[in-house]
Amino acid sequence: MSKRIAVIGAGPSGLAVLRAFESARAAGVEVPEMVCYEKQSNWGGLWNYTWRTGLDEFGEPVHGSMYRYLWSNGPKECLEFADYSFEEHFGRPIPSYPPRAVLHDYIAGRVERSGVRKYCKFNHAVRDVEWNAETETFTVTVTDLAAKKRVTEEFDYVFVANGHFSTPNVPTFEGVEKFLGRVLHAHDFRCADEFAGKHVLLIGSSYSAEDIATQCHKYGAKKITFSYRTRPMGFDWPESFSEKPLLTKVVGRTCHFKDGSTAEDVDAIIFCTGYLNHYPFLPDDLRLETRTSLYPPNLYKGIFWEKNPKLMYIGAQDQFYTFNMFDAQAWYARDVVLGRIALPDYDAMHADSEAWVARNGELAGADQMIDFQTDYVRELLEPTDYPPLDVDTVAKLFKEWEHHKVEGILTYRDRAYPSVITGTMSPSHHTTWMKAMDDSLEAFLNQPASQAAE
Amino acid sequence: MSKRIAVIGAGPSGLAVLRAFESARAAGVEVPEMVCYEKQSNWGGLWNYTWRTGLDEFGEPVHGSMYRYLWSNGPKECLEFADYSFEEHFGRPIPSYPPRAVLHDYIAGRVERSGVRKYCKFNHAVRDVEWNAETETFTVTVTDLAAKKRVTEEFDYVFVANGHFSTPNVPTFEGVEKFLGRVLHAHDFRCADEFAGKHVLLIGSSYSAEDIATQCHKYGAKKITFSYRTRPMGFDWPESFSEKPLLTKVVGRTCHFKDGSTAEDVDAIIFCTGYLNHYPFLPDDLRLETRTSLYPPNLYKGIFWEKNPKLMYIGAQDQFYTFNMFDAQAWYARDVVLGRIALPDYDAMHADSEAWVARNGELAGADQMIDFQTDYVRELLEPTDYPPLDVDTVAKLFKEWEHHKVEGILTYRDRAYPSVITGTMSPSHHTTWMKAMDDSLEAFLNQPASQAAE
Repeated sequence: MSKRIAVIGAGPSGLAVLRAFESARAAGVEVPEMVCYEKQSNWGGLWNYTWRTGLDEFGEPVHGSMYRYLWSNGPKECLEFADYSFEEHFGRPIPSYPPRAVLHDYIAGRVERSGVRKYCKFNHAVRDVEWNAETETFTVTVTDLAAKKRVTEEFDYVFVANGHFSTPNVPTFEGVEKFLGRVLHAHDFRCADEFAGKHVLLIGSSYSAEDIATQCHKYGAKKITFSYRTRPMGFDWPESFSEKPLLTKVVGRTCHFKDGSTAEDVDAIIFCTGYLNHYPFLPDDLRLETRTSLYPPNLYKGIFWEKNPKLMYIGAQDQFYTFNMFDAQAWYARDVVLGRIALPDYDAMHADSEAWVARNGELAGADQMIDFQTDYVRELLEPTDYPPLDVDTVAKLFKEWEHHKVEGILTYRDRAYPSVITGTMSPSHHTTWMKAMDDSLEAFLNQPASQAAE
Repeated sequence: MSKRIAVIGAGPSGLAVLRAFESARAAGVEVPEMVCYEKQSNWGGLWNYTWRTGLDEFGEPVHGSMYRYLWSNGPKECLEFADYSFEEHFGRPIPSYPPRAVLHDYIAGRVERSGVRKYCKFNHAVRDVEWNAETETFTVTVTDLAAKKRVTEEFDYVFVANGHFSTPNVPTFEGVEKFLGRVLHAHDFRCADEFAGKHVLLIGSSYSAEDIATQCHKYGAKKITFSYRTRPMGFDWPESFSEKPLLTKVVGRTCHFKDGSTAEDVDAIIFCTGYLNHYPFLPDDLRLETRTSLYPPNLYKGIFWEKNPKLMYIGAQDQFYTFNMFDAQAWYARDVVLGRIALPDYDAMHADSEAWVARNGELAGADQMIDFQTDYVRELLEPTDYPPLDVDTVAKLFKEWEHHKVEGILTYRDRAYPSVITGTMSPSHHTTWMKAMDDSLEAFLNQPASQAAE
């Protein structure tokens, strides 16, 4: 009987797995049967947008953390698939910082063309995964949400690819339960317009805080206050922004900070306090327990659950690299499943991952982190037939991007970079980001031909 | 080996079960071992308040639908426990419409005094219940959320008491995904202050819509528009209120209704569209599938899962009666478990419930529904040793309450009624509801002694 693979999640990580096996099949290789369970009604993972928050139409936690007006916060050249360029998808070069709908179209385009939709079961939520030592198979229990039926199937391999930017991490603060305004986590943020004229406090100092605050500013927020735990972001914020140390308590609509200062008349508090790695469908002995990290422990090559490497995690890391790193992981994992790459024994796997975990612990600053993940991706790519990807050039772009953010947090998205895959220079966008209020694919692609040819 | 009972949920329904068995134990009867799994960190079910919405600190769906400033929307005399009066708990009579904190204190007081806290495992989310025909036991799988561990235990009986006002039913409407304001379900409504000065559209025409709208009005909302599917509520609304037929589409901040009319400059849309009976931890063959109903199908006496009556549901009905009906169910179910009441065979059980379901289908108007549930509670109480409860008088109060609401939707909470249990007339509250801005237990109980003695 042919082997069977379950893929949990049809976002960029799960789709990378489908694509990796499908490319082998297209080359004439016999590959296992695949079933991809996706809780949402479409593929694309976080790159789907939903207006829903909290629980969805089936009573399941809403996966999406995506908001309106989200534009890529890194150059698309850093995440481009080596086997499917933006130029190939759109038929011409496009600017470096596309809005959500454009990235969704690109991700979906590759998998649509490679014909893997038939492996996806949408509106299916995985409830349980159990390992049977006797049969050496996994029993996967899934709810077909629309039909309201449970289904149980056996698999030889399981790919955990449900992402880790969906389950909010929400600490508490004294008095927040009596705050007389709105309190939400970034996960539930949808529409910046709602905060026009408001004073918004954002707790956190990473990507969510930075991006949601600038979105709110762009759409008319009156005042932005950040509260950081460790250190301020220190960008060249507009005048209406300020950065404060950690929130200590909330009294009415006044927020008090660790240095004794306050923010008055706060209308909304947005927790930009990150996400949890959350795998409620996995038993204790298969479940990764980690906070967001560039190298979570107990995963050989950042993929294989060392105590049972037939269970694989894709995209469980914190990320500079995204789509192309998921590809690197998927191609490597595929080659292990196909017997092209042999795994060492547990001790060797664990020693290898521990060395990476230790090196991760020593990193200081963004450039070192970029180099770390570059080395990781390079190591994965080396033994596979994934098309050439010049990760050193990608790393160089990441570092430029970091500097461009420092030079102008409201203007860095107006920059353009050359494609690492095709070498083509990207055109400038027809409108600067601060003036581009329409985030639709149509508005973005409505690039004058003359400009596109620049 | 002694029998074992699992109770899922430590809200009013689950606590009624613990209390029912404990009262038998106190009377010298040998009762099964009980374990009550509660997802929240405290008992009280919906009567707990949390500022959290969406997912909780463990990444689990927030159970609470409770908001600040919620006052009972029915007389407390209609829900009073026959074995524990309000007068006994508070040491004196209190007004008829208490705020949330007072009702929580009352519920908790009874179970605290009866010593059942030791049976409760808080921060435990039930993941799975399976029936083993061979051993005639249930295998219950639970996640200990704080310890991040799964636990599996065997039980002879399972009580499903997790409630059905926690998982929002959220339909969609054309254009809602592009609405430029806030969209939420009543489940995520927390604080009326946030809507001061706003135009709020509430979709729905039942208790949530009515109560959230009047709360928002009380705390300064500028304008209230309701949208109903079937018929308007027709109360004596303030001038700033209007009732429209069903929403057909949203364009920008304009909402269009079925009669061609519109509401302009809407700031927030609140879906008061009810809740789902949601039991994701139950397999297909044990799971009740029903919309909110005064008599869900396939439950003998509204309690016993007819295909396997060792599985019992408490409080799965739509409700006029609440706490005391859960008691009636718990006492009846307890007596079945203890062998004091014999269950008939499947056909007889099903014929009995089908007759109730059919009668429910014929009901017209609130008075008939009240009589229906009164008959149901009376039938449950009759064979048990639950202290005398004069349900005819309770029914009379329910009907008076309905009329008082019609007489004044903003003033009905200023009424007072006599206790059905003690006969004592309740005092008037020291402040009319529209002027009582502080919903704390302390403010409510700060009743002048002279007035309390009225």
